Amino acid sequence: MQPNTKPARGPLNGVDTPNLLATINFVAGQPELAKFQFRAHNQWVEGTHSKSAMLGFYGAGQEQNHARATYADSDHPTVLCGADRGPTPVEWLLHGLASCLMAGVANIAAARGIKLTKVQCAVDGDIDLRGILGISEEVRNGFQNIQVSFEIEGDAPAEKLNQLIEQARARSAVFDVLTNGVPVTVGIKTIQ
Amino acid sequence: MQPNTKPARGPLNGVDTPNLLATINFVAGQPELAKFQFRAHNQWVEGTHSKSAMLGFYGAGQEQNHARATYADSDHPTVLCGADRGPTPVEWLLHGLASCLMAGVANIAAARGIKLTKVQCAVDGDIDLRGILGISEEVRNGFQNIQVSFEIEGDAPAEKLNQLIEQARARSAVFDVLTNGVPVTVGIKTIQ
Repeated sequence: MQPNTKPARGPLNGVDTPNLLATINFVAGQPELAKFQFRAHNQWVEGTHSKSAMLGFYGAGQEQNHARATYADSDHPTVLCGADRGPTPVEWLLHGLASCLMAGVANIAAARGIKLTKVQCAVDGDIDLRGILGISEEVRNGFQNIQVSFEIEGDAPAEKLNQLIEQARARSAVFDVLTNGVPVTVGIKTIQ
Repeated sequence: MQPNTKPARGPLNGVDTPNLLATINFVAGQPELAKFQFRAHNQWVEGTHSKSAMLGFYGAGQEQNHARATYADSDHPTVLCGADRGPTPVEWLLHGLASCLMAGVANIAAARGIKLTKVQCAVDGDIDLRGILGISEEVRNGFQNIQVSFEIEGDAPAEKLNQLIEQARARSAVFDVLTNGVPVTVGIKTIQ
């Protein structure tokens, strides 16, 4: 007689699969634990150079801190009259998209029992700067389009590896925000 | 007799205003120089941890490199079964938004002759993780909403400082992408 339950998955790809699946089941029973707020605090430095700190967030019912704060610089390149003290703001979006899809691929592969050996992706975003430079009202400010190109290697047929990336796309927070948009409010507090 | 041309703006806030305005005029006459492509290359490390490199980009008619490569880690926090080796992918979006608005504020202030002394912003994004965890089909994967809260100090009345932030929002590449969305294609190349 065949058991009709799937075998429990062990940890794989550095993912603690049993813990991840238990967490999902736990949150399913207590949906208030799923409410998270993520945050960045940004300080202007000079010119177009600014620096963000990312440390605290809210989630799983309480205030949380990352193990350590991360500080990230952003600037415009010299060809756009910046000091090039860091990547441009739009490159940080591409990093966010790449890393969101990548985390999904690893989690989903672990849940499906697929061992990954190498995964990488290139993310390119095309932008016509006549928008932000105020030269043309016909040209949008942001990217015209973004292309993600994955290379993936693991112990499964190409079709199964392709499905990992498809499912990562279907469950990606950043892919959703970038393709569907999100309401953003901008508030101001002046200091006199 | 009053001259009917505005005085030329000098450098201000660390912005080389004459160079910036000359660049805009130059690009206006050669629109192909405004076509840029920004890039991130991401490598899976382990679990939900990945690392991006940002170095090369295309723009102003040729391949360009930043002064140095920037490497950035991303991971899920331990409460979501990650190893917390860096900010989450969605926090990187918030950093991109903050730094884009901030660069705009500095450039626009310089163009308007307003000296800034301090500018900072907090960016918060609310997300219900029942989407990405696959618990509810009613809940979106991405942020429900994002709130940006600026503090700004400079040698202009509150109304003028507020207008800087309003204009930065109106000309922000990242604000446009996050609020209006952008087409994203995901391609796959498997290694067998």
